[in-house]
Amino acid sequence: MRSTMIIDVEIICIGNELLIGKTLNTNAHWLGRQATILGANVKRITVVQDIVDEIAGIICEVIRRKPQYIIVTGGLGPTFDDKTLEGIAKALNCKLQVNQKALAMVKEKCEEYVRKRHLQIPVELTPARVKMAMLPDKAEPICNPIGSAPGVRADIDGTVLFALPGVPSEMEAIFMDSISSLLSQAVGDRVFVEESMFVDNMAESYLAPLIDKVMAANEGVYIKSHVFTGDYSMSVENKPHIEVHLTASAKAKEHPKMKLLKAKDELSKLIEAVGQPT
Amino acid sequence: MRSTMIIDVEIICIGNELLIGKTLNTNAHWLGRQATILGANVKRITVVQDIVDEIAGIICEVIRRKPQYIIVTGGLGPTFDDKTLEGIAKALNCKLQVNQKALAMVKEKCEEYVRKRHLQIPVELTPARVKMAMLPDKAEPICNPIGSAPGVRADIDGTVLFALPGVPSEMEAIFMDSISSLLSQAVGDRVFVEESMFVDNMAESYLAPLIDKVMAANEGVYIKSHVFTGDYSMSVENKPHIEVHLTASAKAKEHPKMKLLKAKDELSKLIEAVGQPT
Repeated sequence: MRSTMIIDVEIICIGNELLIGKTLNTNAHWLGRQATILGANVKRITVVQDIVDEIAGIICEVIRRKPQYIIVTGGLGPTFDDKTLEGIAKALNCKLQVNQKALAMVKEKCEEYVRKRHLQIPVELTPARVKMAMLPDKAEPICNPIGSAPGVRADIDGTVLFALPGVPSEMEAIFMDSISSLLSQAVGDRVFVEESMFVDNMAESYLAPLIDKVMAANEGVYIKSHVFTGDYSMSVENKPHIEVHLTASAKAKEHPKMKLLKAKDELSKLIEAVGQPT
Repeated sequence: MRSTMIIDVEIICIGNELLIGKTLNTNAHWLGRQATILGANVKRITVVQDIVDEIAGIICEVIRRKPQYIIVTGGLGPTFDDKTLEGIAKALNCKLQVNQKALAMVKEKCEEYVRKRHLQIPVELTPARVKMAMLPDKAEPICNPIGSAPGVRADIDGTVLFALPGVPSEMEAIFMDSISSLLSQAVGDRVFVEESMFVDNMAESYLAPLIDKVMAANEGVYIKSHVFTGDYSMSVENKPHIEVHLTASAKAKEHPKMKLLKAKDELSKLIEAVGQPT
C-alpha cells in the first residue's frame, strides 16, 4: 500500500543575482512546478545572499520547520562566491572535507572536458576543482550528468536535504535523474489537478462572491483568481481579463479531477447568470 | 548632510501561484532590481502560501531581523484568498477595521469604473470591496493609481512595512509613486554600480583563481561568474559562455564605478594572459 502523506517541500535559492534583480528566479519556478505536479506541498521559497552565515541561518530555520524535503539551488561551483556547502556544514555543525566519490566525479568531468576538446593541457585537480568535492561530512554526492559540480544529499532527522547547482540545465538534470522518483514515491497516491477558465469584462470584486459560493459547496477545491488586466482607472478598451485557476490536491481515488470539473461548471453557470455586468 | 547607512530591505511575496510554479515571480525580480539600483541591500526574498498563519509567521520573523524596509506583495484584493492584511494584523497583534481613507479610495475606484464604462449599475460597497479597506489599525492606506486595492504602510519600531498588490502594474505604480523616493532618501549618497564582461571558451574552474586574484586586489568590488553554457559532457560545439558580473555598493564620493572599471581591466588582462585555455 502506498502512503498518502502530505509531503512538505521547501526551496532555498542561494545567490545575490536573484536578490539584486539580475537573474529571474526560474529555478524556483521550475522546482515548484515539478514538486507540485508530483503531488508535494511546496510550503516556502526563500532566497538568500552568498554569505555563509545567511546560508547556514536559513538552513537551520527550515530544518526546524521539519519539511520532509529541502531543495537548495545555487552556490556549488568552483568560485569563491559558491558557499552553499560551507553554509550547510555550518548549519549541520559538521566538517567540510574532501569526499572521495565527489572528487572522482569532478575528475571524470575535467578529463571528459579536455578529451572531448582534444586539448593539450594536463587535467589538474586545482583548488577550485577540489572545492566542488569538499562536502559536509554528513553528506553524499549525487551525479551531475551535465556539469562538473556534483549535487549533494544530506539526511537530517527525517528531513532530506538536496543541494543542486544553480545552472538551470544542471539543476533540472539532477532533479530528474535523482530526486523526482524519490519525491513521487514519498507522495504516494496523492495527485495534484488543475483547471483554468478565463473571465472577461468582469471586475474581480464582482467575481469574488461567486468564487466564495462555489468553494463553500465544493470541499477540497481551491479557486484563485489572477487579474491580468482590469485596471479601474484605465480606458474602457482595457477590459478586465481574469484567469480563474481551480486546483485540488487529494488521493487519486477521491477523484479530484471530477470535483474540479464540477466546481468549474458551477462557477461558469453563476457567471453566466450574473450576465457579466461590465 | 545625507546619510550613508546601509539600508536593508526584505521582500515577502504572498501567493500559492508562486509556490506551485504557475506564476513566475517577476514582482520579486522587479522590486529587487529597483531597491538595488536605489542603493539598498536586498537581504532576502521569501514566498509563502495564502494562509494567515504563514503570512503572520513570516512577517514576525522578518520584523525580528530588523531590516529598515519590508515590502510585501500580493494578497490585497477582494477575494477570499487575499489574506495579507489579516496576516499583518495578526503579526502586529492589532485589529482589522475599516479605514475610512481606504474606503474612500476603494469607492472612488468603483465609481470611476462604472462611470467610464457608462454602466447602468449602482456602485455598491459590497463585502468584497469593503474587505480591501479593512486595514490593521496600525496601518495607513497608500493611493493605488491603477487598481482598486490601496497599498498599505505600517511603521513598526524602526522598520517600515509596505504591502502592495500582486498585480504587477499596480505594484510598480505604487512603488514608483510612494516608495521609491523614500527609499532613495533613506539610502542617501550610497550608489550601486555594475559592469559585465563575457568570457567564451573558458570553463569556470579556470576562471575562478583569476577572479580571486582580482578581488583580493580590489577591495569593495564583488565579482560573480554566471555560467550560461559550458556543460562538461556536451559536444565541443557547446562551448563555455560565462558572464562575469562586477558590482560595488559604496558612497558616491568613493568613486565605485572607477574601481569597478579598474578591476574589469585587470581581469581582462589576466584572462588574455592565460590565453583562454579551452
